[in-house]
Amino acid sequence: MNQPTTPNPTTSSSPAAVQWIGESDGYLQLIDQTLLPGELRLIKCHNVETVWEAIKTLRVRGAPAIGIAAAYGVVLSQHGKTAAHSTSLAEAATSAAKYLATSRPTAVNLFWALDRMDHVINASRAGGSELGQALLAEARAIHEEDRAMCHAIGRHGAELIPDGATLMTHCNAGGLATAEYGTALSVMFTCQDQGKSIQVYADETRPLWQGARLTAWELQQRNIPTTIICDSMSAHVMQTRKIDAVIVGADRITSRGDAANKIGTYGLAVSAKFHGVPFYVAAPSSTFDMTLSDGAEIPIEQRDHQEVIAPYGQKLAPSGIDVYNPAFDVTPAELITALITERGVVQPVTAEAIAKHFA
Amino acid sequence: MNQPTTPNPTTSSSPAAVQWIGESDGYLQLIDQTLLPGELRLIKCHNVETVWEAIKTLRVRGAPAIGIAAAYGVVLSQHGKTAAHSTSLAEAATSAAKYLATSRPTAVNLFWALDRMDHVINASRAGGSELGQALLAEARAIHEEDRAMCHAIGRHGAELIPDGATLMTHCNAGGLATAEYGTALSVMFTCQDQGKSIQVYADETRPLWQGARLTAWELQQRNIPTTIICDSMSAHVMQTRKIDAVIVGADRITSRGDAANKIGTYGLAVSAKFHGVPFYVAAPSSTFDMTLSDGAEIPIEQRDHQEVIAPYGQKLAPSGIDVYNPAFDVTPAELITALITERGVVQPVTAEAIAKHFA
Repeated sequence: MNQPTTPNPTTSSSPAAVQWIGESDGYLQLIDQTLLPGELRLIKCHNVETVWEAIKTLRVRGAPAIGIAAAYGVVLSQHGKTAAHSTSLAEAATSAAKYLATSRPTAVNLFWALDRMDHVINASRAGGSELGQALLAEARAIHEEDRAMCHAIGRHGAELIPDGATLMTHCNAGGLATAEYGTALSVMFTCQDQGKSIQVYADETRPLWQGARLTAWELQQRNIPTTIICDSMSAHVMQTRKIDAVIVGADRITSRGDAANKIGTYGLAVSAKFHGVPFYVAAPSSTFDMTLSDGAEIPIEQRDHQEVIAPYGQKLAPSGIDVYNPAFDVTPAELITALITERGVVQPVTAEAIAKHFA
Repeated sequence: MNQPTTPNPTTSSSPAAVQWIGESDGYLQLIDQTLLPGELRLIKCHNVETVWEAIKTLRVRGAPAIGIAAAYGVVLSQHGKTAAHSTSLAEAATSAAKYLATSRPTAVNLFWALDRMDHVINASRAGGSELGQALLAEARAIHEEDRAMCHAIGRHGAELIPDGATLMTHCNAGGLATAEYGTALSVMFTCQDQGKSIQVYADETRPLWQGARLTAWELQQRNIPTTIICDSMSAHVMQTRKIDAVIVGADRITSRGDAANKIGTYGLAVSAKFHGVPFYVAAPSSTFDMTLSDGAEIPIEQRDHQEVIAPYGQKLAPSGIDVYNPAFDVTPAELITALITERGVVQPVTAEAIAKHFA
């Protein structure tokens, strides 16, 4: 199942996190993200079980990427079955969709993508179209829609970034979690595509080091000069070097523009405000939760203490000590210079401007 | 040499980092700080070589603590020698002082303490006083002066802290690095001695985790409720919970009050300013460098990249990526609510107020 490839950390055309190879009798290729950045290994999924395992064990991660992988997983249910038995083909697809839904029970994008595949299965039962082709077409549509959304975010964001800019980011809002390009990193990749010279400071992002592990890897793959810093160094870097903008992603944005994102984002926004550095949040429309106004209403997930005090099993702190480990924080709209979505840029960030943006 | 003791993480009377046991024929007892917080092991030093090794390998660390340990090391040079040979006694002491000076060649306090011991040796050669007693008296004076200084800082600082306060600190400015109590932590310990109830958020302090390892241990030893957070969480904690004050130490303070301290201190000061939280810097007079005014003149030590991207040997980041790892940052006087020294409190922090404080 796992096929090692020769890693090439300086290539500018690395494989996508999720990729379908061939036609309806093809296969799904994934980057095994659990091995990054130490090793770039591609997984070739020829059956539903392999896709299920890859989602379950976080080999593929990030809400959009999981949804896309699951959709292709349903396509794989048709392999080795003949068109002579159309009922059994549909049953195999339905069964695959149900099975894949058990891989990560809390992943909203997973259910959303599998629902779309279910509609195709039902339409096929009624209309008798060739199911394998129809499933592949729908999976490709899901994939392509995400790709287009990421690129649109990149295009809109890149208009805000001057040539020669030094940028800063936190956590990983890159291509690994999406069809390609990601959200915050899409702005950087698009700048590069447009011929702009940029360099990036990447916060390591404690406690799980997504910045040092994944963002640094993605930027390095595209030859964008990147410097890793500890999260506590970002204010010092803003004080002593010119930072042109901070760009981050978001997990949830309220109707007034308060943005929940990886813990540490808020402190970075406070520091950016103090130093007069523009602070941009890049996220698709689907991130907006218009049922909430005040960011304080967003529930903050609390995570295992061991992530903080025993990284990689190395016990740092005395036994019995208390730990606080929130996964997210909320940056109020007042600290956000602009929101970047696939529809354009919201600036200044107010409830009225957001309502108009989505009208 | 190493004698294990039963660790008792909830005792309120833990051994000091540096302690002389007995009279001039006694011995030096050190906490092996390389084993903290996993194990509280005491080292009994009966000869100069053991002291040298303890300083060299960082079993004893922190500028004042190193100076005190070296002074007691010179006392140990007299052991097993008879008073009948006064010349050889003085030679043994001089030789010990020279030897101990090679243990950590850049430690200023080490040379300062050994100079004081040399003066005693020279006075003894001239006057013929009992050298062993004189050396112990001088080492105890060095020790006691540091202890008194730390306690004075604690008393002055405690006046700024209300009963029931929730405090925040960064890195380790505690008793382990000094005779006892430390600087920033001395304020907390003194509050407790005065019967005030306090609780503390301790930043883990990347990249070397002095907060999670040492500060958390010291506070726990005294039963002060302590919560470890990642450095990136401090702004979120100030946003969502009431923090009454931040108290940190300093490595160097300029004539206008700019303070160099462990990397991350500046970002914490920016966040404290934004949230209206008082920000206090506690340090002895010897920390002030009146030859410098602007903190930007303070040279910032750059440390090994591996501390950031390969903690405890665990490689996090892709090969060949750039890293920035400054050991310190500089917090400008404008962000410091008050300076706390053994002489009192400087508030507001201005060049004039500092000059008057030391007049």
